[in-house]
Amino acid sequence: MSVNCPSSPSPRYAAAALLRFVSRLFEAAGLEPSRAEVVAEALLEGDLMGHSTHGLQLISRHLDGILGGAIARDGNPIVVADHDAAFTWDGGYLPGPWLVRAAMKIGFERIGRLPVVTAVIRRSGHIGCLAAYPRLAVERDLMMLLTSSDPGVEIVAPHGSTEPRYTPNPIAAGWPTTGQPVIVDTSPSTTTAGMLGRLARAGATCAGPWLVKASGEPTDDPAILSVPGGGAILPLGGVELGHKGFALALIVETLTSALAGFGRADGVEQDGASVFLQLINPRLFGGLNEFRRETSWLADACTTAAPRPGLAPVRMPGARGLALREQQLRDGVTLHEDTLPGLKRWAGHFGIPAPLPIGTRDAHATAS
Amino acid sequence: MSVNCPSSPSPRYAAAALLRFVSRLFEAAGLEPSRAEVVAEALLEGDLMGHSTHGLQLISRHLDGILGGAIARDGNPIVVADHDAAFTWDGGYLPGPWLVRAAMKIGFERIGRLPVVTAVIRRSGHIGCLAAYPRLAVERDLMMLLTSSDPGVEIVAPHGSTEPRYTPNPIAAGWPTTGQPVIVDTSPSTTTAGMLGRLARAGATCAGPWLVKASGEPTDDPAILSVPGGGAILPLGGVELGHKGFALALIVETLTSALAGFGRADGVEQDGASVFLQLINPRLFGGLNEFRRETSWLADACTTAAPRPGLAPVRMPGARGLALREQQLRDGVTLHEDTLPGLKRWAGHFGIPAPLPIGTRDAHATAS
Repeated sequence: MSVNCPSSPSPRYAAAALLRFVSRLFEAAGLEPSRAEVVAEALLEGDLMGHSTHGLQLISRHLDGILGGAIARDGNPIVVADHDAAFTWDGGYLPGPWLVRAAMKIGFERIGRLPVVTAVIRRSGHIGCLAAYPRLAVERDLMMLLTSSDPGVEIVAPHGSTEPRYTPNPIAAGWPTTGQPVIVDTSPSTTTAGMLGRLARAGATCAGPWLVKASGEPTDDPAILSVPGGGAILPLGGVELGHKGFALALIVETLTSALAGFGRADGVEQDGASVFLQLINPRLFGGLNEFRRETSWLADACTTAAPRPGLAPVRMPGARGLALREQQLRDGVTLHEDTLPGLKRWAGHFGIPAPLPIGTRDAHATAS
Repeated sequence: MSVNCPSSPSPRYAAAALLRFVSRLFEAAGLEPSRAEVVAEALLEGDLMGHSTHGLQLISRHLDGILGGAIARDGNPIVVADHDAAFTWDGGYLPGPWLVRAAMKIGFERIGRLPVVTAVIRRSGHIGCLAAYPRLAVERDLMMLLTSSDPGVEIVAPHGSTEPRYTPNPIAAGWPTTGQPVIVDTSPSTTTAGMLGRLARAGATCAGPWLVKASGEPTDDPAILSVPGGGAILPLGGVELGHKGFALALIVETLTSALAGFGRADGVEQDGASVFLQLINPRLFGGLNEFRRETSWLADACTTAAPRPGLAPVRMPGARGLALREQQLRDGVTLHEDTLPGLKRWAGHFGIPAPLPIGTRDAHATAS
């Protein structure tokens, strides 16, 4: 997880202008307008909540995928199974954010009369920032779980090994309280490929020994991942307690690829995702008021627990992201420096002017 | 997680004799025979699989609970909600293992026609070793998720804090492959109270800085937990990546207490559990053969990944436990030294002779 910390001199962009611009890029690449907008929304949401490695920085991955044919421009998922409370789709490598939002829409239609609705999607395009989705469920007073793996990528080592075998396998969740919702977007691995790429480009090291070299030595060097056979990301828990992260990551692999019936066993070469999504309706369990009473009580108990000396008060997951989102919707969005070249590239490619930073005089120039 | 490593001189006990003995203890305490046997089975299963801190060592906790009235001798759970694919029980502090097995039984009846069956139980007695349960689902070609929290106990600190606010929150899972099943029993916290108690009694330290002192300093001293205000267990990830373990533990709190509608907000004083249990039927998703093909492929890929120098080959979660279980069912069960005094105490209390180690001549003496 990375967080933008906007400082006063950073240029800010109006969220609506960014959304419109990115939607137009995806339309220009061949998506129908409603799908283009959903994809743009999901990616922008990453930046809004401060997950800048999984926000608009990913537009090249998505647009290159569409133009190169790895991501499908149109069509619909194939229904592999539908048993009302659960359905399985073959996503045909349609854009991941659109598939997830489409599955959520069906889930929302069913969840009023069902306690739990589960969806799994195989052969989805990359779904971006997982934190982008649960808020939409929370606004309906639902709990949501979302997790994904990419069967075409191997960068995390099983506990005790030096060779990568699976992906960081993010786990997201969201649920209501009586106040601010809780939005989790985490993983059972020490870090992500996006974060390591950013650190490597900056010549920086990780804050701890998050990787293991092929020699077996733990390391904070993010660059080893870009060398074939160089090593792997460690499971959460590192060399000491990595059996825990490994076990949790295997649960994710199983809920996503195994349940969807397609994954690493199929020798997947292309970038994509297996997705597991679950909506849970507290009204049909112990009651919504009881649910919110408990989640609120625990949030209060945690945020008022004594911080370690020198640290800020405890934050609940998502608290910083939701506050940043609100502020950025109001004052403009700060984009990470790694994100701007992609926007410029695609503005030029399609001849669609990129939005200018707020306060820029020449409204017809493109972003530089 | 702790693992018995039986060496030749350790006494071994016939599993059937232990089961019969422990069942009789619970019958003597007032449980009806079928319930007594289920509880005894679940506790013995902990020892069989090598989770000796959560096996028969817990009989005093359970028997003291029953005799003291904290655990109910008889009665049935109250159905708070039942919507076929999900049900919520108030367990009335009936014995946890019996409640879990009863919920699983109902789940097994429904899962043939439902893709997912979810059960949550509030006010359950302690459920023991979570690894004891998923095997029964896996034998039916199901995937199972099981997680619990104890709203009456606070021993883990939120990330960035020194004060405990929740429990280690174990997460178990099981699923079939074409070979040996995978059985996960882990947690998003560095360790458990049971393990710390054992280390503290032995005057040993943790293998790493798994706790935080009230002063804010990380420590490997297990004894700080027994001092009120002394400190707390750290989330998985420790001081550096503990936001991940904290977030995952909050998901568990929410699936268990919040969904069941009863928890920390209710000022629970007594030892017990909130339980979330989910059965998943791969046949009604992407298909059972496809599921097993994927889980087997991944297990093979992980166990053949190059180990770190000096380490044994990668093991899948549960592999050691299942092998140990098979061996101990055949050759006898090795009990941890911390477990024997409890067996002796209750044998004496109820006048029920404890089994003798295999090979002991005097079959009428009690364990010493």
